[in-house]
Amino acid sequence: MHTNDAAKLRQYIEKIENLEVEKNDLQEHISDVYGQAKGDGFDPKIMRKIVRLKRMKTEDREAEDLLLDSYMLALGLIPTDGGNGESGS
Amino acid sequence: MHTNDAAKLRQYIEKIENLEVEKNDLQEHISDVYGQAKGDGFDPKIMRKIVRLKRMKTEDREAEDLLLDSYMLALGLIPTDGGNGESGS
Repeated sequence: MHTNDAAKLRQYIEKIENLEVEKNDLQEHISDVYGQAKGDGFDPKIMRKIVRLKRMKTEDREAEDLLLDSYMLALGLIPTDGGNGESGS
Repeated sequence: MHTNDAAKLRQYIEKIENLEVEKNDLQEHISDVYGQAKGDGFDPKIMRKIVRLKRMKTEDREAEDLLLDSYMLALGLIPTDGGNGESGS
C-alpha cells in the first residue's frame, strides 16, 4: 500500500474511532438516565419497552400484539374465552 | 400513577428518545465514513475488523488468536506442521 493510501486509511480509522467514542458516551448517558429513573421508582425494563413501542408504527404494534395473543392462546397461556379478564391493571 | 410521576416519567422518556436520535445520527455518520472509505478503494469489512482489533488489549488479541488457531487446527482447517497437509487423528 502506498504511503498516501496508508495515511488516508489512518484518517478514516481515526474518524470512525472518534465517532465510536462519542457513540459510547451517548450510550453511557442513556444508561445514566435509566439509572436516575430507577432511583425515582420507575422500572427501566418497562421504560425500554415503552421506548421501543413508541418507535414502532401503530399498525406494526397492533400486528405484533395480535400475533403475540394468538401464540399465547395456542400455547394455553391465556384462556380461550378471552376478553372478560380478571387481570388487575 | 400521580400526575407528577407521569410528568417525570414523560421527561425521562423524552430525554432518552432525544439521546437515541443523537446516537442514530452518529451511527449514520459512521456508516457514511465507511462508505466514503469504500469509495476510496478500502474494504469496509476489513476496516471494521481493524477498529475491533485496535480496541482489544494486546493480550486479549493474542489469546483470541491462539484459540482461533487451535480450533482451526482441531478442525483440520490448517495443517499441523510446515504445510505438508497432514492433520492429526
